[in-house]
Amino acid sequence: MRVVEGGVCAAKGFTANGIHCGIRKNHSKKDLSLIFSAVPASAAAVYTTNLVKGAPLAVTKRHLQNGTAQAVVCNSGNANTCNANGREIAEAMSDLTAKQLGIPAEDIIVASTGVIGQPLDITPIAAGLPLLAAGLSAEGCHAAAEGIMTTDTVRKEAAVEFTLGGRTCRLGGIAKGSGMIHPNMATMLVFLTTDAAISPQMLQKALSGDVAGTFNMISIDGDTSTNDMVTILANGMAGNPEITAGGGDFAEFMKALNTVTIALCRKIAGDGEGATKLLECRVSGAADSATAKTAAKSVICSSLLKAAMFGADANWGRVLCAIGYSGAAVDVEKIDVSFQSAAGCIAVCQNGTGVDFSEELAKRILSEKEIEILVGLNSGNACATAWGCDLTYDYVRINGDYRT
Amino acid sequence: MRVVEGGVCAAKGFTANGIHCGIRKNHSKKDLSLIFSAVPASAAAVYTTNLVKGAPLAVTKRHLQNGTAQAVVCNSGNANTCNANGREIAEAMSDLTAKQLGIPAEDIIVASTGVIGQPLDITPIAAGLPLLAAGLSAEGCHAAAEGIMTTDTVRKEAAVEFTLGGRTCRLGGIAKGSGMIHPNMATMLVFLTTDAAISPQMLQKALSGDVAGTFNMISIDGDTSTNDMVTILANGMAGNPEITAGGGDFAEFMKALNTVTIALCRKIAGDGEGATKLLECRVSGAADSATAKTAAKSVICSSLLKAAMFGADANWGRVLCAIGYSGAAVDVEKIDVSFQSAAGCIAVCQNGTGVDFSEELAKRILSEKEIEILVGLNSGNACATAWGCDLTYDYVRINGDYRT
Repeated sequence: MRVVEGGVCAAKGFTANGIHCGIRKNHSKKDLSLIFSAVPASAAAVYTTNLVKGAPLAVTKRHLQNGTAQAVVCNSGNANTCNANGREIAEAMSDLTAKQLGIPAEDIIVASTGVIGQPLDITPIAAGLPLLAAGLSAEGCHAAAEGIMTTDTVRKEAAVEFTLGGRTCRLGGIAKGSGMIHPNMATMLVFLTTDAAISPQMLQKALSGDVAGTFNMISIDGDTSTNDMVTILANGMAGNPEITAGGGDFAEFMKALNTVTIALCRKIAGDGEGATKLLECRVSGAADSATAKTAAKSVICSSLLKAAMFGADANWGRVLCAIGYSGAAVDVEKIDVSFQSAAGCIAVCQNGTGVDFSEELAKRILSEKEIEILVGLNSGNACATAWGCDLTYDYVRINGDYRT
Repeated sequence: MRVVEGGVCAAKGFTANGIHCGIRKNHSKKDLSLIFSAVPASAAAVYTTNLVKGAPLAVTKRHLQNGTAQAVVCNSGNANTCNANGREIAEAMSDLTAKQLGIPAEDIIVASTGVIGQPLDITPIAAGLPLLAAGLSAEGCHAAAEGIMTTDTVRKEAAVEFTLGGRTCRLGGIAKGSGMIHPNMATMLVFLTTDAAISPQMLQKALSGDVAGTFNMISIDGDTSTNDMVTILANGMAGNPEITAGGGDFAEFMKALNTVTIALCRKIAGDGEGATKLLECRVSGAADSATAKTAAKSVICSSLLKAAMFGADANWGRVLCAIGYSGAAVDVEKIDVSFQSAAGCIAVCQNGTGVDFSEELAKRILSEKEIEILVGLNSGNACATAWGCDLTYDYVRINGDYRT
C-alpha cells in the first residue's frame, strides 16, 4: 500500500466539482460540491448521534437503505437544520441533482454544513447545478474539497493505492472540519470513494469498524455536530473479486481505509478552528481499549490543557487532571506522562508524580506544530490515540460572531 | 430570611484571617487563610470525584470522620497535588495550625489550591501561621476570602440571617473559582459557616442535598478540579434547639443554605476565568429532573455557545445542538428557546424551529452582563438551572501560561 496524491477522484471512475452558487455571500468561497461515480456503487454511511439532526441526514439514510448510491451533493454555508421546510429542501436538492445527472434520486447522498436554524434557499442551488455537473472531472476533486469547507483554512484530502486479488485499487476522501467537532459514534462530513469491489454489507462493516478508532477520536471543541456524516462509495471499477466476507482482502481494504481516515483525522484536528497546533494523545498500557480511548479523548478535550499547549506551557498536571475525571478506571500512581515533537521528547511525570525537567527543552518541544502527549498507564496492553488542537484567541474570535 | 453582609464570619463565634505568607511570588496577593470557630462545631463536606485528588483531601476526610471540626486552613498558589510528599505536607500544615490554635489536629480542615504537581514548601506556611492566628477577627472574613483566590478577580462571599426555634441564626460562606470548574458530585473550594445547632448527620444530609442543584450545576471550562471541596461548620452558638431530624427547622436551614450557595454559584460563574458575562441556563418543562439538569448543563458547557455569548451573537442553533448531544431524552420538535437579560426577553426558537426575531434587540439583550438562556422542553414539569460564563480571549491568555 502506498499514499498517493488526490482525494475523492483518486479511484477509477470518480469525477467531482465544486463551485460558488450563491449560498455564501463571499463570492471567493465555493459553497456547492458534487462527487459522481461513472457506475452505481456500493454505499455505506455513519451519522451523528445528536438528537438534533440536519434535514439532509434523513433523506440520505432513506436513499442508502438499498446499499447503493452514485453521487454526493453537499452545500456549505447553511446546515439546513432546525428549519420548518428543511426536509423539503433536502429532497429538492437531491431531486434536482438526480435530474441533472440522469440517475434516480434514490442514488443521491445529500449533505449540508454551516449555520443552524436559517432557511436554506434552493434557488442558488438549482441555478448552480447545471454548471456544477457540466464541470465534473477528475481534476475537480480539489474544487469539491473546497466546496464543503466552512471555517476550514485548508482543504482536506487523502488517498492510498493498494492491491486486492492482483488488481490495483485506490481509496481516497475529502473532509471538512473545523468547529462543532466532537464526533460520537459518527463524525463530521467526510466523503470517501474507492474503486474496489465490495458488498454494501462489508463496506458498512468496514466503515463502522473504522470510525470508532479514527473520527470518533477527534475533538476540536467538545460539541457534537448536528450534521455529522461519513459516507463511502465503492464502484468496483478496479475489477478485483468482490469482497463479500472477512479474510485477507477485507483486512487489506480495512488497512487502506484506516490509512486514509487517519490522514483525514490529523488534517481535521490540525485545522481546528483557530488552531496553531495538532495535538495527538497516545495512551498505552491500559487495561482495555475502552479505558485507553476514554483517557486519550478526555486529555484532548480539556480546555485547560488545550490553552496550555497554545502557550507551549508544560502544565502536565492538567493531563493528569483530565485523566482523573474522565471516568476511566486508572491507577493514578502508575501514570507516566511525556511530551514529544520534532524537537525531542521529555518526561514530565512518573508514577503520578512530577519529575524534574528542563523547562527550556519543554518549551522548545511544545513550540512545534505537532505535539504528541504520551501517557503510559502501566496497567495492561491496550492503547488508543486521540486527535485535537490547541485552544487559541482565534477560536474565540471565530465563534464570537460566526453568523455575520 | 434575609440576605446580610459578610461571609464566613457572619455567624456568631467565627473569626477569620488571610495573609501573604510567601507561597506566591506576588507579595500583593494573599496566599494563606484561616477560619476559626470559638467552640467545636458539627462539620460536613463533599469532595471532588476526580481520581487524581489533592493530598489535603485525604487528610480532611480522615479528620471529619467524627463529624466535628473547629478550624479551616487553606493556602492558594499551590494545589499540593501529584507531589511525592503531598500527604506529609498536608499533615504538617494541619498539625502546625492545630498547635497554633491549641486544638486537636483532628479538628482541622486543610485545603490547597493552585498549580498541580509542584512541591509545596511548608516553610512559609509555618512562618506565617503565628501572624495569621494572631490576626483572627470577625473583620478578617474579607482577608480570608482573598487568601483562597487563584485567578479569581473578586472575592466571593455571601450570608443570610434566618430563624430557627425562635433564635436568630446566620449562615455564610466564601468561595474560590475560577478555572478548572466543572464540579461533579462535589465542587470547587467553598467554606461555609453557621451558628445554627445541627447534628453532623443532618448537616451532611443538607450539604449533599444542596450541592446537587447548586455547585454541581456550574461549569466554567468542563474541567473537574482535583482539589474540589465544600465544607460547612455549624457551631450551635445561635442557641436554637439542635436539628437532629427532618421537619420545619431542617427545611428552613436548607433554604438558608441554598440561598447562600446559589449566591456563591452565581459569583463563581460570573467570575469564571476571562469571563465578561454570567450565563444562567434555565430549563423547564422537562419530563424529570435528571433530563432538565443534563440539558441545562450541556448548554452551559458548550464552547461554541460560550463564544457566541461573548460575541453577543444570538446563535440559538448552538443551544439546540448542545441539548441534542447531551444524552437527555428530549423531543427536539417541542423545544422553545429565548434569551433574556435586563434589556428584555426575545424568543428565537419555537418547536425546534427558528422564528423571526429582531437581531438588534437580541444584540442589546446579549450585551448585558447577566444572560438567561431559557429553554422550554414542553414535556413535563421538572426544571433545573445551570450557571456558567462566556468563553473569551482572556480565558486563553490566562491559561496559555498559567504556571509562570
